[in-house]
Amino acid sequence: MENTSNEILNYINGTWKQPGSGNDLPVMNPASMEQIATVHMSGKSDVKEAVEIADQAFYDWRRTPVTNRIQYLFHFKNLLEDHIDDLAKIITNECGKTFKESVGEIRRGIENVENACGMPTLMQGYNNEDIATGIDEHMIRQPLGVVAAITPFNFPAMIPLWFLPYAIACGNCFILKPSEKVPMSAKYIFELLDRLNLPEGVVQLVNGDKEAVDELLENSAVKAISFVGSSAVARHIYSKGTAHGKRVQAQGGAKNMVVVLPDAEINMTTRIVGDSAFGCAGQRCLANSLAVTVGKARKPFTEAIAEKAANLKVGYGLEEETEMGPVISPDSRERIERFVETGKNEGGRVLVDGRGKTVEKFKNGNWSYPTIIDNVSPGSSLAKTEVFGPLFGLMHVDTIDDAIALINTQSYGNMACLFTSSGASARQFRYEATAGNIGINIGVAAPMAYYPFSGWKESFFGDLHAQGSHAVEFYTQTKVVVERWIRDWDRVF
Amino acid sequence: MENTSNEILNYINGTWKQPGSGNDLPVMNPASMEQIATVHMSGKSDVKEAVEIADQAFYDWRRTPVTNRIQYLFHFKNLLEDHIDDLAKIITNECGKTFKESVGEIRRGIENVENACGMPTLMQGYNNEDIATGIDEHMIRQPLGVVAAITPFNFPAMIPLWFLPYAIACGNCFILKPSEKVPMSAKYIFELLDRLNLPEGVVQLVNGDKEAVDELLENSAVKAISFVGSSAVARHIYSKGTAHGKRVQAQGGAKNMVVVLPDAEINMTTRIVGDSAFGCAGQRCLANSLAVTVGKARKPFTEAIAEKAANLKVGYGLEEETEMGPVISPDSRERIERFVETGKNEGGRVLVDGRGKTVEKFKNGNWSYPTIIDNVSPGSSLAKTEVFGPLFGLMHVDTIDDAIALINTQSYGNMACLFTSSGASARQFRYEATAGNIGINIGVAAPMAYYPFSGWKESFFGDLHAQGSHAVEFYTQTKVVVERWIRDWDRVF
Amino acid sequence: MENTSNEILNYINGTWKQPGSGNDLPVMNPASMEQIATVHMSGKSDVKEAVEIADQAFYDWRRTPVTNRIQYLFHFKNLLEDHIDDLAKIITNECGKTFKESVGEIRRGIENVENACGMPTLMQGYNNEDIATGIDEHMIRQPLGVVAAITPFNFPAMIPLWFLPYAIACGNCFILKPSEKVPMSAKYIFELLDRLNLPEGVVQLVNGDKEAVDELLENSAVKAISFVGSSAVARHIYSKGTAHGKRVQAQGGAKNMVVVLPDAEINMTTRIVGDSAFGCAGQRCLANSLAVTVGKARKPFTEAIAEKAANLKVGYGLEEETEMGPVISPDSRERIERFVETGKNEGGRVLVDGRGKTVEKFKNGNWSYPTIIDNVSPGSSLAKTEVFGPLFGLMHVDTIDDAIALINTQSYGNMACLFTSSGASARQFRYEATAGNIGINIGVAAPMAYYPFSGWKESFFGDLHAQGSHAVEFYTQTKVVVERWIRDWDRVF
Amino acid sequence: MENTSNEILNYINGTWKQPGSGNDLPVMNPASMEQIATVHMSGKSDVKEAVEIADQAFYDWRRTPVTNRIQYLFHFKNLLEDHIDDLAKIITNECGKTFKESVGEIRRGIENVENACGMPTLMQGYNNEDIATGIDEHMIRQPLGVVAAITPFNFPAMIPLWFLPYAIACGNCFILKPSEKVPMSAKYIFELLDRLNLPEGVVQLVNGDKEAVDELLENSAVKAISFVGSSAVARHIYSKGTAHGKRVQAQGGAKNMVVVLPDAEINMTTRIVGDSAFGCAGQRCLANSLAVTVGKARKPFTEAIAEKAANLKVGYGLEEETEMGPVISPDSRERIERFVETGKNEGGRVLVDGRGKTVEKFKNGNWSYPTIIDNVSPGSSLAKTEVFGPLFGLMHVDTIDDAIALINTQSYGNMACLFTSSGASARQFRYEATAGNIGINIGVAAPMAYYPFSGWKESFFGDLHAQGSHAVEFYTQTKVVVERWIRDWDRVF
Repeated sequence: MENTSNEILNYINGTWKQPGSGNDLPVMNPASMEQIATVHMSGKSDVKEAVEIADQAFYDWRRTPVTNRIQYLFHFKNLLEDHIDDLAKIITNECGKTFKESVGEIRRGIENVENACGMPTLMQGYNNEDIATGIDEHMIRQPLGVVAAITPFNFPAMIPLWFLPYAIACGNCFILKPSEKVPMSAKYIFELLDRLNLPEGVVQLVNGDKEAVDELLENSAVKAISFVGSSAVARHIYSKGTAHGKRVQAQGGAKNMVVVLPDAEINMTTRIVGDSAFGCAGQRCLANSLAVTVGKARKPFTEAIAEKAANLKVGYGLEEETEMGPVISPDSRERIERFVETGKNEGGRVLVDGRGKTVEKFKNGNWSYPTIIDNVSPGSSLAKTEVFGPLFGLMHVDTIDDAIALINTQSYGNMACLFTSSGASARQFRYEATAGNIGINIGVAAPMAYYPFSGWKESFFGDLHAQGSHAVEFYTQTKVVVERWIRDWDRVF
Repeated sequence: MENTSNEILNYINGTWKQPGSGNDLPVMNPASMEQIATVHMSGKSDVKEAVEIADQAFYDWRRTPVTNRIQYLFHFKNLLEDHIDDLAKIITNECGKTFKESVGEIRRGIENVENACGMPTLMQGYNNEDIATGIDEHMIRQPLGVVAAITPFNFPAMIPLWFLPYAIACGNCFILKPSEKVPMSAKYIFELLDRLNLPEGVVQLVNGDKEAVDELLENSAVKAISFVGSSAVARHIYSKGTAHGKRVQAQGGAKNMVVVLPDAEINMTTRIVGDSAFGCAGQRCLANSLAVTVGKARKPFTEAIAEKAANLKVGYGLEEETEMGPVISPDSRERIERFVETGKNEGGRVLVDGRGKTVEKFKNGNWSYPTIIDNVSPGSSLAKTEVFGPLFGLMHVDTIDDAIALINTQSYGNMACLFTSSGASARQFRYEATAGNIGINIGVAAPMAYYPFSGWKESFFGDLHAQGSHAVEFYTQTKVVVERWIRDWDRVF
Repeated sequence: MENTSNEILNYINGTWKQPGSGNDLPVMNPASMEQIATVHMSGKSDVKEAVEIADQAFYDWRRTPVTNRIQYLFHFKNLLEDHIDDLAKIITNECGKTFKESVGEIRRGIENVENACGMPTLMQGYNNEDIATGIDEHMIRQPLGVVAAITPFNFPAMIPLWFLPYAIACGNCFILKPSEKVPMSAKYIFELLDRLNLPEGVVQLVNGDKEAVDELLENSAVKAISFVGSSAVARHIYSKGTAHGKRVQAQGGAKNMVVVLPDAEINMTTRIVGDSAFGCAGQRCLANSLAVTVGKARKPFTEAIAEKAANLKVGYGLEEETEMGPVISPDSRERIERFVETGKNEGGRVLVDGRGKTVEKFKNGNWSYPTIIDNVSPGSSLAKTEVFGPLFGLMHVDTIDDAIALINTQSYGNMACLFTSSGASARQFRYEATAGNIGINIGVAAPMAYYPFSGWKESFFGDLHAQGSHAVEFYTQTKVVVERWIRDWDRVF
Repeated sequence: MENTSNEILNYINGTWKQPGSGNDLPVMNPASMEQIATVHMSGKSDVKEAVEIADQAFYDWRRTPVTNRIQYLFHFKNLLEDHIDDLAKIITNECGKTFKESVGEIRRGIENVENACGMPTLMQGYNNEDIATGIDEHMIRQPLGVVAAITPFNFPAMIPLWFLPYAIACGNCFILKPSEKVPMSAKYIFELLDRLNLPEGVVQLVNGDKEAVDELLENSAVKAISFVGSSAVARHIYSKGTAHGKRVQAQGGAKNMVVVLPDAEINMTTRIVGDSAFGCAGQRCLANSLAVTVGKARKPFTEAIAEKAANLKVGYGLEEETEMGPVISPDSRERIERFVETGKNEGGRVLVDGRGKTVEKFKNGNWSYPTIIDNVSPGSSLAKTEVFGPLFGLMHVDTIDDAIALINTQSYGNMACLFTSSGASARQFRYEATAGNIGINIGVAAPMAYYPFSGWKESFFGDLHAQGSHAVEFYTQTKVVVERWIRDWDRVF
């Protein structure tokens, strides 16, 4: 059954179903603030039903050989590629980012589908003969059962795909609870999943908010929770999910610093850093939000980044010339603007002020133009707080050691970037900086699908991250078998 | 400084130090209930000091190449082997198990030291060239910082060695909080560690109870907690440690079933199952505590196990003829005896009654003789509750499917064993039984050091277990580096 | 350019090209002995040209990121699946096996394409920080350059796909020299490859025989040779290729024994063993060609297998009722018939005689019906020699030890199978039998794509086999980098 | 039995034994050309006997659990460390290098013993459940049987330890045939091995030359050959060993280039490069023998390296002030001197001439002083030929591309080094240079024990190198087991 209306339902037991809570929310296009869909919210009983169905589906799904399970993913990759433009448009319309950015995030999502196609190798256990004379030992990986992911608004397609392909390739049944702000992308993805003819209950979609999340966290049949969102919520999810005995991986926020050394080439550095700072309107956990220039790099970088910020083409993401879209909501826009004021109050100098501007054709959009604040003070609230918008701060120090010290006192540890031509500086930086994703002459150090997305400190709660071998470890449990055969027991012929 | 007295102090910053709380507890020999030592308990400030010292030591220890770090472990292995008899005597005296059992647990501990000597390979990261043209990616494993283990009374040497060698080989600084009932073994192990000339603060010992544990759980400089104990406490530790943002691995209790099929040879099966049930007086998380006989296996197995139980030689663990020692405390003994009564009340038949017996030479010891209760009801409290003593229950079913169903409705999932000569039954059992450690014709399916100790369900909270590759994953964090070099930036000659 | 004629050309530099030697050979349908195509043979200069083009193409192909390289394989999988029926018909027509068998071999081939899609993970190198203070080490895998495979007639689609996907996913340029008896399947596969728009020279096809092979072995730009064929030729290829400094993996023949214990269920055993013995008319290196019955298994198994052999439906592989097709050539048929005579002369008793029979509708086909010879003597030529036809021998012993001893004195070591219900017998068999592929209640123990195809003894020359991690190791070379950065060299700001 | 005389015997079947050939050779101290021992040479029958004994010992040794096998290696490490000074003196006396260099090579050898102690993990196989419904697959690693190593004079202790620990930890029986020029170190190592109480036949020593080598290559019970020596002999060994069906790893010679960029700090670069060029009197396969300076690096580097060469303290390796010892033989010295002449004839300029000099106290020693030839022509015989002495050539180019081109046209590919402060240059170099061991600001890029020693091109024949995971793959064969259990076969109760 395809679900072409603008009513966003749940996908339960292989079919589209309206949840029973009776609540719904409008879905808005942040570039126009027009309603583009209605999402129906799930109550506890809706989620409970999904979990029960998943739990029943698990028995057979786990017994489906992994070589068969991955066939669905090969097919899924094909469908995603065939529909990449349609899905990208949906993302742009509900999330605001540019069409090119939307295509980009789908590609990163597809890479995870591809990677999970290698599951027969990825989930191999290991063995030894003769751990003692005549006794063998082997470890086999078995799936967990029902697992769930709770995903944020800023990457409506990519982040669900960090989890879903691995979860089901490992033999689990998977439930997605997407952000209620961007439910259309998830709906579209599940329309594609529906065409795979997966056994019913293997993948399910529940729309909702805190009530739905609570049921996922509390339901004892849910064995693992994956979460991406703010650090405050991530910490809560981690704490509550584990208190219910589950394994949890909870990815939080970030305040990523980029360090610019004097031996970096300023033009290319500025271009890359600017893309990182203002791409997706700064609404990503791998955005550079603070630059730390070292020594002589200060002046040329400051001038160049200010110029870039001032000239960025802001607008509706489906218009070709647009370089940056709106932020997600009026609340978000107001919060960003408040932080500009905060930055000033804390001693910052506003080099480029993105407040109070609008886009002619879309006057009601949540426009927040690129903003640059110089002289952000170490330890100030602007230096420490995730703003999640196109607000970029500048700091200046004398040495690379000082710059690394600034990074290492941050409570977040998602990413740290360095621009340099020096091998020694790069080595020092990757060795010492306490962030889990490091970019060397890279502005968005997003790990490929075959690497764990390695947040550290307040940017991640848990031990096994999304993607790569961590995803496989997270979605399977090890079973160790110690085995001895006594030959004479059956030597009767 | 050696510490030869019977006063058990902390080992802090490379030296023995009395904690400041002023509290102390007697250490008793459970075979005689004579006091053999006094342990001084740590307050929060004692633990805080240890954590601070560890945190400072981490800077240099992490920078010590892993090839150097493992040299301490090679040396440690030598020392442990040279002192195995002395350490075994201490274990027997404070913990009660037989000398042979004490030697056995040390050997399992040493195997973990050996395994951690392979850390240069074990902690390798991985890499790809050209994730995109000219861009490389690599993942490196870096240590966490300060980590701590909280260990139980029943394996005073082995369980600390599940953690310490991996933790420090990975570059962390390690704090041990052993059970206050068996602090002498830990003291002795730290006397050996003291001879390694490790940098001060790399390994530290704090004695104490809940107060010390709370500080470890709350202190933000402690990055990871390893725990072994009862499921109730494990769940608490997991919940509280994670609520403080840490990674936690918490191993709980067990109620392990062994299934005996008619095609098992009964004599050998009985010998092995009996060793599992009554070894260490049943005080181990891998003890078989319930047998499920299938079909015709019932009669011969029941008779044979009853005979074995009735004839086991109970006594002081250092006397050569002793086959089973005392339980750890009078409380423990009373609890076991209460459970015999419970079993009767729930419809069980006491085949062998170990209550009310004593050992002539050691009348005050905590003697709890082997007890067998037949007809334990599925779902009864005796069927579900960990007793931690030499109390063995029997259940009977008609098919292997019934037997596996019994296992799979248990809330614990530490181990399940099968005795059979059939390849098909073994395959079904290891495929279906929901326990993380499976024994086929094995009574104590303890994973070797190079395998994760894989408890499932209520027997384990977390995702990464002790030992093997899981230990390395647990004690390191992944750092992903995305790297690009722009050639012309420095092409100036 | 598609190549639809029945002229089989080379595929060179992205286009179909007639080789210059002027020689050609007819391609015959073995079921009718009608010519169905003409293959044009390559001389040394044709091969040399292909190698040169591959060598030039390598520069860019190696620089194409692996994530891009695997996109061609995802596409290739789709094309193979879309055309599986057409390709299967071609295989049946030139090779003789049944349509179902042809489909089966393509599926095994596709599994290797799927597996090679996981190359980003599979070809990761590894790394360590601080092998000494401030010195890091990493190993990266780089492709070899030009590699070639020389493949046999019996699996015209599967065996090329053991090599091609891994070779090119690793970044090598690949040349296939298929058997001149079955060039149509390779041609069809390259027509599909042509549609991938791979860069020119990355995959090439050269048809030919010894002259072409010699050039591949001697040409210094060819870095690795993969071969599958008879042991005599495999040994020659291994010796000659290595003498020219190359790495070589050369898979040879087999004489696979299946051991039937009295505790095996005879009906199912017979069905499975019969499928192994007579499938593909016995022309596969994983055919069971000798059964060793143990004790009481003799009588029932002998009777049942004789009945199965006598009733197998022989015929043209595209007719639905056909259970077994013809052998490849009149020579092959004659050789099989000679071996029946040999078997008799060596003391064997012909239970089922497949000689001299024909299929009504296809009188000219190379028909060799299932034949069973009882009492094959250990050490006789029939016991030792690969016949490559539907000739199945029976031997009888008293114990499993005797049966294993027979296996272990064979010069081949490709596969050994056991039928039993005993876990102990299975363990003994897999521990002791000196063959690299072991089947337990399996008649054709073909390793999945993610396992090395592990021939031993005279069945394999080299150390790294086809498929799985071995394929990746074979098609890459390790490069170890030891790296130190001296910070003050560039600390000038 | 200890063997303290200066008669070098074989170590066969756990005891010292004089070979039967009747031939012997003097062992000379290259610093004094005094005879210090007599080595008794083995004939074919002596080697044959060793192989037979090894073959018999294999049966039990392979059945000894790997956890037990590694215990011998832990002990061996202890013994090597306890006797490091004695062994180092022997090395210096028979091989010529300085005491410090001798200690260094033993340490690298010990690291391989340490690494092989991790064999329980290193040799794990892998597995999958349900490759098809109800069918499991696993790969187990089993040892090969008898394996042998043929080792050169220049690292009498280290190179045997590249092989022996892995070979026996994997469960093989190992035979060493050391260089007849340096048999004393091997004898001493076997005296230590003798104290381990290994089962007889597990490790054996045969002294000899071509006759002994031929028997090892031809004997069908020897399954694998490891060789280190010149490329000409390596190629022969590879070709002959493979022609006899064995797996062979044969490491050959080298002509290693070091590239010095203008952004390298010259003082440290010169010190490191000089150590590489003149350490061990240039007699190592990881010696830098040609420097390629780029642009402005020419002048300062040329002056500095010439000064270093002219002032190196040459002498007897046991005298403390000695910085460089003699070369191995008068022949070697003459060959080096001839190459100086060749270099001049080919247009080189002799900056420092080490010919015709001697050491006062040891006038008869094989003294060859550091020599530097400037303007070595690309393609000249001095540029292409391994000299194996302290003869260092200089070349000059304008760009790093030119420098890499020089490396990539070399027929050898053992090592290439770069000195720079630029991350971009380092990346380009490691990406493009066709050598298997790369040093970045490192003069001797010797892989750690946990990395393959990765020679390329004419520097290595085979595919699996010494050390690390390659050693484990080389010394084991994979056995794949496909397993199905039919439940009803034994469901009879």
